[in-house]
Amino acid sequence: MNETQSLARFIARSRWSDIPHAIRHEGKRALLNWLGCAIGGCRDETVERAMAAVDPFSGPRVATLLGRTEKLDALHAALVNALASNILDYDDTHMKTVIHPTVPVAAAAMALAENRYVTGAQLLHAFILGVEAECRVGNAVSPEHYAAGWHITSTCGVLGAAAAAGKLLGLSEQRMTWALGIAATQASGLTAMMGSMSKSYNMGHAAHSGLIAALLAERDFTSSEQALEAPRGFAAVLGHNAKLSEITDKLGETWELSWNAYKPYPCGIVLHAAIDGCLQLREAHAITPHDVQRIDVRMHPLALELAGKPTPTTSLEGKLSVHHAVAVALIRGKAGVPEFLDECVRDPEVVELRRKVVATPDAALDPAEAHVRLTLRDGDTFARHVPHAVGSLERPMSDADIENKVRDLAAGTPSERRAESLIELAWSLDQLADASTLARATVP
Amino acid sequence: MNETQSLARFIARSRWSDIPHAIRHEGKRALLNWLGCAIGGCRDETVERAMAAVDPFSGPRVATLLGRTEKLDALHAALVNALASNILDYDDTHMKTVIHPTVPVAAAAMALAENRYVTGAQLLHAFILGVEAECRVGNAVSPEHYAAGWHITSTCGVLGAAAAAGKLLGLSEQRMTWALGIAATQASGLTAMMGSMSKSYNMGHAAHSGLIAALLAERDFTSSEQALEAPRGFAAVLGHNAKLSEITDKLGETWELSWNAYKPYPCGIVLHAAIDGCLQLREAHAITPHDVQRIDVRMHPLALELAGKPTPTTSLEGKLSVHHAVAVALIRGKAGVPEFLDECVRDPEVVELRRKVVATPDAALDPAEAHVRLTLRDGDTFARHVPHAVGSLERPMSDADIENKVRDLAAGTPSERRAESLIELAWSLDQLADASTLARATVP
Repeated sequence: MNETQSLARFIARSRWSDIPHAIRHEGKRALLNWLGCAIGGCRDETVERAMAAVDPFSGPRVATLLGRTEKLDALHAALVNALASNILDYDDTHMKTVIHPTVPVAAAAMALAENRYVTGAQLLHAFILGVEAECRVGNAVSPEHYAAGWHITSTCGVLGAAAAAGKLLGLSEQRMTWALGIAATQASGLTAMMGSMSKSYNMGHAAHSGLIAALLAERDFTSSEQALEAPRGFAAVLGHNAKLSEITDKLGETWELSWNAYKPYPCGIVLHAAIDGCLQLREAHAITPHDVQRIDVRMHPLALELAGKPTPTTSLEGKLSVHHAVAVALIRGKAGVPEFLDECVRDPEVVELRRKVVATPDAALDPAEAHVRLTLRDGDTFARHVPHAVGSLERPMSDADIENKVRDLAAGTPSERRAESLIELAWSLDQLADASTLARATVP
Repeated sequence: MNETQSLARFIARSRWSDIPHAIRHEGKRALLNWLGCAIGGCRDETVERAMAAVDPFSGPRVATLLGRTEKLDALHAALVNALASNILDYDDTHMKTVIHPTVPVAAAAMALAENRYVTGAQLLHAFILGVEAECRVGNAVSPEHYAAGWHITSTCGVLGAAAAAGKLLGLSEQRMTWALGIAATQASGLTAMMGSMSKSYNMGHAAHSGLIAALLAERDFTSSEQALEAPRGFAAVLGHNAKLSEITDKLGETWELSWNAYKPYPCGIVLHAAIDGCLQLREAHAITPHDVQRIDVRMHPLALELAGKPTPTTSLEGKLSVHHAVAVALIRGKAGVPEFLDECVRDPEVVELRRKVVATPDAALDPAEAHVRLTLRDGDTFARHVPHAVGSLERPMSDADIENKVRDLAAGTPSERRAESLIELAWSLDQLADASTLARATVP
């Protein structure tokens, strides 16, 4: 039995009781984090433009647009919800591959859950299996695949979306094999799109394509049954030196959600340790920005190359500027979505303080590590070393951290008042008789 | 100005009067051939299964399913019509790349023409430009791209579909650049799918993705503006040693439709010369199958490797069997769709005659060339050398040949009585006030 068929068999045969409790809980954390990101992102201009384009083509409007009052057919809802929940760059990260695993898988599964009757446990089960398929294929082609220019969340996400949707449809092993095949032949997404709206469209396309793959397979639409490992299949064509055994080794014993991390700040992950350091110093020493004369940050040279923009002018640049990130953290005592909007990046107070930031490369550090030192006007200095930022696998976001993140994301949106009940529903997802309750709980 | 922007500018600025008359006529030939293929293929089981999957999600049903009475929204119609018109392996071939250029481009453009008011000349113009974009990008990445396992009609077809749809939408240069970018990031399709239904789904996915790319760009949804040539763009990621100058050299002076060929027989193109030889000998010498003792065919070794199956049992295998092809041609005096159906491949009379076929490799021949020699029971021998089959660029199908092909494809279908008016409309496409008349002319 080859990799494609083994993976399909695993997904088709998996029972809810096979899923360890810790993984069930991680699945809930991932979904709650995702719903928060969707509420925060769903009114972005990117979403409005996508909606304007696809809304006239919508079929029966049964599926919720997370955080909004409109509905779309399930295929288009999968597309728009995936796009919306990725747009803030605030979604989760599978640390072995840099896949953002939840977006394409959850968007496809949730849209389908509003089209067919599905319990909360079924949704959670399908979601966990979808992430498993997505990340295992990602492991097999990493790191060469992403380095070559493939937007890995999209190329592997389509497989995860098909796996999750196929599980919800109750596909047999044969049909699940076809679903994975139809997904594989739609795998696409270029990292050249980073910095444009199409970065998040890649997620939408993956969710949509994965869902349609499962729906086609349900109708016995056939594909190659060696889609992953065939000589002209996914791994050979989109990979380089792929390690196919990563797809099947210890399947059902280890779970990829164990490597999932959640961002405390909506910006480049290499900035998180520096932000942590500033927030800690600010609190420990009651520092006010006016007192600060100079801010020294030491980071890994690659981290600085990626995120060392000294004079950002837009939100997108601010998310990759250590100068902006530490300045805004010191001034506002937080670094959430508002702290990376255009207006904050251009705020004169922030601009003034970031001029005092001196960023120095230090190859002895890890790319996720940072040293911060504040020099005050009176000559005092305070330093902090952050080896692992909050949100790393070593210092994971607590459940309460994720709850607070969701509250922050909902704050000021029309869904603000729904945050508490959404949080409650997410933790009890496996008890819900109707999984779609969760999607509807985001609606203002 | 880079390749992506140059191509977008060319498409956006092109005027109908820029298109040479010979190319306009070639465009009509391509569309007529395509409509025939759609009528012949639209009731294939593959189409039925795809319809069963996507029909429940259809939006406003304004777009014709070619050859059928149902309608779908434009996006799903593009998907299903592309799939249906490719399923018989009877569509056209751009000889420089082996792209089947019309399917994805025409399916997207025609579906859109039923959604927005478009004249026949506008449709033909957009179609010609779409093929130009698709094949020029194909030229740039050939032959390495297809050899690596990319289903080139799909990967390049999505760009052609976006270009044609974008032209019909009247996109500016800026928006056309985005449309090409959104298309490029959806480029996908594995040749591992050959032999399964997903081979034709690749076409459907390309048409659908190209159309949505144009619709998104119309709403100012942005993409990379160097999608083709960026370091992590289409040519770098899906190509190898790409020749980007092929995209822009002599743009507007040469036209890729000049290299377009139409199949006289719905089977592997390497079998066409041998079929021609048999049909010619049969007619010239009034040969009946009963008289034949032995059939010798000499072909290029690669042609024989690809299409030398001595004992085919299915339609799909028959399409790659020189033994079946020459036997059926001698028995029936033709080699159309019915001659490659399962029942004909298993017909005892055909099976008996194909046992008398001796296929010999001859490396001195061209892959498209064949020598045929018949030895009769009475000892007579008749030989024919076919250097170029009917349908090759050297011996193109005449307009009348294409008309007859369309009549053959319509024969026995519910659209049979529409064939003559369809042919008439296709030749006068540039005079039609409403392009969608052409799609509706295929409906029973």
